[in-house]
This record gives sequence, C-alpha cells and structure tokens, in this order.
Amino acid sequence: MAAKNQYIIVIGCGRLGSFLANRLSSEGHSVVVIDVNPNAFDTLTADQFSGFRLEGDATELAVLKQAKMDKADVVIGATHDENVNIMAAQIARNRFNVPKVLVRIVDPNKESFCRRIGVECICPALMAAEKMITILNEKQTV
Amino acid sequence: MAAKNQYIIVIGCGRLGSFLANRLSSEGHSVVVIDVNPNAFDTLTADQFSGFRLEGDATELAVLKQAKMDKADVVIGATHDENVNIMAAQIARNRFNVPKVLVRIVDPNKESFCRRIGVECICPALMAAEKMITILNEKQTV
Repeated sequence: MAAKNQYIIVIGCGRLGSFLANRLSSEGHSVVVIDVNPNAFDTLTADQFSGFRLEGDATELAVLKQAKMDKADVVIGATHDENVNIMAAQIARNRFNVPKVLVRIVDPNKESFCRRIGVECICPALMAAEKMITILNEKQTV
Repeated sequence: MAAKNQYIIVIGCGRLGSFLANRLSSEGHSVVVIDVNPNAFDTLTADQFSGFRLEGDATELAVLKQAKMDKADVVIGATHDENVNIMAAQIARNRFNVPKVLVRIVDPNKESFCRRIGVECICPALMAAEKMITILNEKQTV
C-alpha cells in the first residue's frame, strides 16, 4: 500500500498528466497540476480531482516556487515536450531536493541522462512497442 | 520463441512504427511499412530493416492491396492518429481476414470498440500512467 498524503506536483495536464492528477488526487494525495494552457485543466474531473491548478511555464523558477516545489515529495514531468520535463526535473532534483522525480521521455536515448541526474523516466512509445512485440510473440507460440 | 517469417504490415513510420519495423525485420519477419510521408522512412536503419517501404494513405483500399494485405499474418496500426489505425484495422479484419491486428489508441475508451471488432489495442499514455503509479507505490512502500 502506498503512503497517503504525499505532496505531488504534476507538470503538464495532457492525457497522461490529467490521468495521473485525477488518480493520485482521488487516492488521497495533495496534487498540484501545472500547465501553460488553462484549457488543459478541463480534463480534471470534479469527482476525482480536489487539488490545485497552476497556470504557468514549469521551466520558470517563479512558477515552481509558486507550486511550493520545496515541499514536494514527488514531481512528475508529464508534458509532451521531454525537454520541458527534463529541465523541470533537473530543477526539482538539484535546487529543491525533491526525493522522487519521474518524467515522460520521447527519445529512449535520454534514459541514461535521466538516470545520471537521479530521475526515473518512462518512454511511452517504447513501452507500447515492447508490449506489442510481447503480444505478437505470445500469439505465435502455438 | 516466435514463429519466423511472418508477413507483417506496419502502418505509420513514426517512433513506434519505425521501432517495430526495425525490430521485427531484424528478427527475420517480412515487413512492409506504410506511411503518407516518405521522409518518415528515414528512421528505418539499414542494419536492421530489410523490408519494403510503401508511401501512401493506409485508409485507402488501393494502398492496402498494394501492400498485399490479403497475405498478411499481422497488421499493426501505429500512426499517431487512432482513427487511421482503427479504420485500417477494421479493413484488415473484415475485408482481408488478417488473423492478428494490433493498434495504438490514444483514448482508452476506444478499447471496448477495438475488442468488439477483434483488434488488440495498446494505449501508450495509459500504460505510462500505470507504470508511473506503480513506481510511486513501490517507492512509498518503506
């Protein structure tokens, strides 16, 4: 079971970010979601999400301070722009000493850099490809 | 172990499609990749990919016939547009009786429709979200 009441900042409120924000908020965590586009917050559902919405650019220090990143237990970089995710992750680790930082990456080659800076990364396209290959291999094993 | 020499059509040569095409071709399968944009084929690597490139719109029957979809063992819809993937998948199943059809979807709600038409689907954003939540839960179990 997960510890409750973690303070979690989700950067990016697209499909991935809003899914995470809704889910983590409904699980009892304190969640702040940051997005440059206020319309992105429309995907947060009233029955699941009881956190805070912050409109701003997550690569700007002022925005991260406003999100109280110094208090964060977890920061998740979930925008479509892996450079934004990695830049915010670096600030989270180096400046705010956030213990857990996860980012979405697009290019699997960025993984080693992320590891070096103490950031866990997820590459959705690579995961999808590996899953598809697993399905194909399962089906062919007759 | 997977059976070798399957005839596999990959629709879309973006990050997911090209990864699959390179990998499946290097594993010994006969692979045809379809993309509307010929520049997309630049991601196919000479040391891995020995299949065929077909420039065209995979929602057009003429293009699918040209790809010899009637001979395909597997069709993978891997474009960024889930409607293209699903449309091509439907044609693959209904018109060409392709035994295995996999598609990338963006909206997890499309899953039930895909199942109904006999198509397996993968939602990368949902997979990434679930993986992130798993990582968070692991880390918090101290």
